Amino acid sequence: MDKTKLRWNGWGLCKAPDVLGDNGEGIWQWLAQYFGMDALPDTPALPLNRISLPSSRLDASQLKRLAEITDTERVTTEPRERAYHARGRGYHDLLHLRAGKLGTAPDAVVYPENAPETQALVAHAVENGIALVPYGGGSSVVGGVTPSLLSGQCAVVTVDMALMNRVLEINKTDMVAHGEAGIYGPALEEQLQEAGVTLGHYPQSFEYSTLGGWIAARGAGHQSNKYGKAEDWFLAASLATPRGIWRTETFPRSAAGPMLRDLVPGSEGAFGIITDAWTRIHALPEKKEYRAWFFQEFQAGVNATRTLLQHDIPTAMVRLSDANETFFYSVLHGGAEVAANGPLGFCLMLVGFEGDAAEVDHGCARAEEILCACGGADMGAGLGAMWLHTRFETPYLRDPMLDRGLGVDTIETVVAWENLPALHERVCQALEIAIADNSPREAGKGIVMAHVSHSYRTGASLYFTFVFQRDTARDVEQWRTVKTAASDAIIAAGGSISHHHGVGTDHLPWIAQEKGAVACALLRSVKKEMDPQDILNPGKLIP
Amino acid sequence: MDKTKLRWNGWGLCKAPDVLGDNGEGIWQWLAQYFGMDALPDTPALPLNRISLPSSRLDASQLKRLAEITDTERVTTEPRERAYHARGRGYHDLLHLRAGKLGTAPDAVVYPENAPETQALVAHAVENGIALVPYGGGSSVVGGVTPSLLSGQCAVVTVDMALMNRVLEINKTDMVAHGEAGIYGPALEEQLQEAGVTLGHYPQSFEYSTLGGWIAARGAGHQSNKYGKAEDWFLAASLATPRGIWRTETFPRSAAGPMLRDLVPGSEGAFGIITDAWTRIHALPEKKEYRAWFFQEFQAGVNATRTLLQHDIPTAMVRLSDANETFFYSVLHGGAEVAANGPLGFCLMLVGFEGDAAEVDHGCARAEEILCACGGADMGAGLGAMWLHTRFETPYLRDPMLDRGLGVDTIETVVAWENLPALHERVCQALEIAIADNSPREAGKGIVMAHVSHSYRTGASLYFTFVFQRDTARDVEQWRTVKTAASDAIIAAGGSISHHHGVGTDHLPWIAQEKGAVACALLRSVKKEMDPQDILNPGKLIP
Repeated sequence: MDKTKLRWNGWGLCKAPDVLGDNGEGIWQWLAQYFGMDALPDTPALPLNRISLPSSRLDASQLKRLAEITDTERVTTEPRERAYHARGRGYHDLLHLRAGKLGTAPDAVVYPENAPETQALVAHAVENGIALVPYGGGSSVVGGVTPSLLSGQCAVVTVDMALMNRVLEINKTDMVAHGEAGIYGPALEEQLQEAGVTLGHYPQSFEYSTLGGWIAARGAGHQSNKYGKAEDWFLAASLATPRGIWRTETFPRSAAGPMLRDLVPGSEGAFGIITDAWTRIHALPEKKEYRAWFFQEFQAGVNATRTLLQHDIPTAMVRLSDANETFFYSVLHGGAEVAANGPLGFCLMLVGFEGDAAEVDHGCARAEEILCACGGADMGAGLGAMWLHTRFETPYLRDPMLDRGLGVDTIETVVAWENLPALHERVCQALEIAIADNSPREAGKGIVMAHVSHSYRTGASLYFTFVFQRDTARDVEQWRTVKTAASDAIIAAGGSISHHHGVGTDHLPWIAQEKGAVACALLRSVKKEMDPQDILNPGKLIP
Repeated sequence: MDKTKLRWNGWGLCKAPDVLGDNGEGIWQWLAQYFGMDALPDTPALPLNRISLPSSRLDASQLKRLAEITDTERVTTEPRERAYHARGRGYHDLLHLRAGKLGTAPDAVVYPENAPETQALVAHAVENGIALVPYGGGSSVVGGVTPSLLSGQCAVVTVDMALMNRVLEINKTDMVAHGEAGIYGPALEEQLQEAGVTLGHYPQSFEYSTLGGWIAARGAGHQSNKYGKAEDWFLAASLATPRGIWRTETFPRSAAGPMLRDLVPGSEGAFGIITDAWTRIHALPEKKEYRAWFFQEFQAGVNATRTLLQHDIPTAMVRLSDANETFFYSVLHGGAEVAANGPLGFCLMLVGFEGDAAEVDHGCARAEEILCACGGADMGAGLGAMWLHTRFETPYLRDPMLDRGLGVDTIETVVAWENLPALHERVCQALEIAIADNSPREAGKGIVMAHVSHSYRTGASLYFTFVFQRDTARDVEQWRTVKTAASDAIIAAGGSISHHHGVGTDHLPWIAQEKGAVACALLRSVKKEMDPQDILNPGKLIP
């Protein structure tokens, strides 16, 4: 991954795709009106050459010692590198990066090339009181890669795993792949697919995130119904830790006591740096089918989703948008004129099927039966194909929105089916109220929408997107207030603080309550055992 | 569960079913010949009234304090109760029980009625240095419930959970059941099935094991392909621990850091006493279909099993016997005359399908295609129906074998597909050699057989059964030598020391090597956090 082609303060490629195309002008105009303005303001980001970074806390001799572990080219204090690694890519991060607030820039970025080097870096950090930030693609939206150090530590170094990007083995007998942690999604899938197999893990960040990051953050891909969430497809890993290399258990299942490997997914670099991992893989699907259904009520769609899951219908994905999201995405794809008639009054469900042709045909036919019985109307394959085609473009909308005085963030959770409707209502309401209370104008409107993104027999994940007018005078505080209101509502409604984004710094305040005293004590005892000096990603995950 | 109706020194009901029926005489005669004897010897167990138990280490005042937590009826030092709880139900255990070697009898057995009582017992034990053995159905075959105490501890008390046997909630929206830990399989399934749902967990010990025990031992039921292994269907639990009640996370999935609940399955009572648990449930299957296929070679059957799993064919069970097991089970069911022609030269595969009729029909048709392509011959539904009907009778054969100078034990593992054939060969060979070397006669023969019992995309469980002539002068040593040889062979061939029996005392010697230094350190740190005084099931699980 050539980082010079990627934005240091925004999403993805410097040469971003023009997501809105010909619809752009109309949509921006419509958004201005929606938020009560004649036109959207111009709120550009500071360019890097107008920002001064804090000096590195590492002097020449300290940098030399790091370079003795790797080599001089792979230890850098170059300003763009430090700025690039100063934060993840959440809305909150972008506010800082775009404003040139780079106080969190790491004192150096190091690129290890192999596991022994990574282990040597960890040992060096322990010996010298240096905090390390394990770094995959850096797409964390919860502050998971924000450098920070504890009192007594002399510096913080980001360990960017991007050079550890090899597929080490593809075993088609066991259907297991072994890869280095720093490999990005596209490179991994390219090599797997050349061999006729796939991991099938396509998170929204797919293009700019890595195998190790997916595991560390306990991520989920769009097609998790078939391919599993990170903790499902994760089989084993090696980690560089203060206790030496830890290679976890590898068995498909075992009763040899608890599997300590289960502590790795979601560990966010706090117990060790994942150097390589073994994953379950699948044969490349012989057939893919993505179909759309419309539901008049969100709840009917939720019931239909639940029925699909509880009847073991083999879907790869079920994505059910609420009426608001269905409306706003139709404006996005259809242009401002679509908005003229106001909300459409229905909810879009996209259902994906992948696998052997016989499995896909069976799943499709069974789903058709169930969804119709639940009140769904089959809308064919067009919308599904469009979604598949454009799905990685949506995150690119955030930067131009930020340039135009608009903020957009997402928040997600997982909840038991029974509690899902109330949670949906409560969180939408909390967001609307908090957006109004924190708008630069009196009771400013927001756009609040949600979809069911991942589903299980016992519950589902809800993914909320909210758009609002930035209060540029206090935009970090504005964000934090809105985020807090939504997070409190999630916990109060029985949801988890995160289904697939992770904890990082941003969700840390809710962890103690969610997990309870005993689990938190256990988490701290594991941390203490693995990293007694707290050099690994301090300030994240551990309450 | 009325324990007076159950054998204190053998399997199941005192009034055991006559498994062999009319075939019995012929089969015993054939076995005598097989092992080179004219007739099998008479080696009965000692009756309880001829055995003197060690005195309880608890004096009247200590017992009174226990009874203040529960009540006088629920604290017992009655000889049959102490003998009953002196060991689990492995071959190794039966050798001790039948010989009247009851040195491990607990000093008392306590039956808590609810979680606060259980918690109070734990607190009392911590305060008074009493070791506790959490006890479900007591069917452990790895020494998981053998009472033992550490130096400095004054007594060991077995906490039998049998009175905590209620189903607390059945939620058909979330498809989740909440039950107390001490409920036995039949009572749990009866109540679930009355409500139209099932957990679907049918381990071989189903009739005499409990919800809490299944989780604590990380067990697997026959139909785990559909319903999952304990760690799959387990959602959450409450545990009484030295740190107070621990209620684990409950979400279907979450990215709020590692799920500490993952430490509960396989914890074998070492971190706390499971008082109640939440499990995934399924609708009662609309249709069940169990069919048999024959394969000329075991390896062809293994490949076929792997293909079913890796193509996501919805099976409930795939059980593939090797040629030896196919032969010996055909003798068992068909009588000694079946044995006359010698081994049949083929391998039996039973495939079960359960679920909606549409799912079953689809799975069945796809399996037929794949299995035929892999060289299988469809033998229809007769053998499957017979297996379903008689599957819980087989364990009853062990007691009459022990009465007749024969020993029988099982050992199981899980291994990657690629390593499965070599492991199968290596373990069978190790067993044959060790049986011969430890036979009371020169190079005595054994019966060694195996089946693939549970399967996954990346590997499968192999379950070995071995029958041998007891060397009654040294039968514990004989067993240990054979068991050690087989266990060493499993580890050397890349298998786990257990797929679903657990660790207990018997597998403990292999845990450090299997899990590695870091995982063992983690396990100890979790133990230390949860149970710093080591009162919970000491001597098990923790290397």
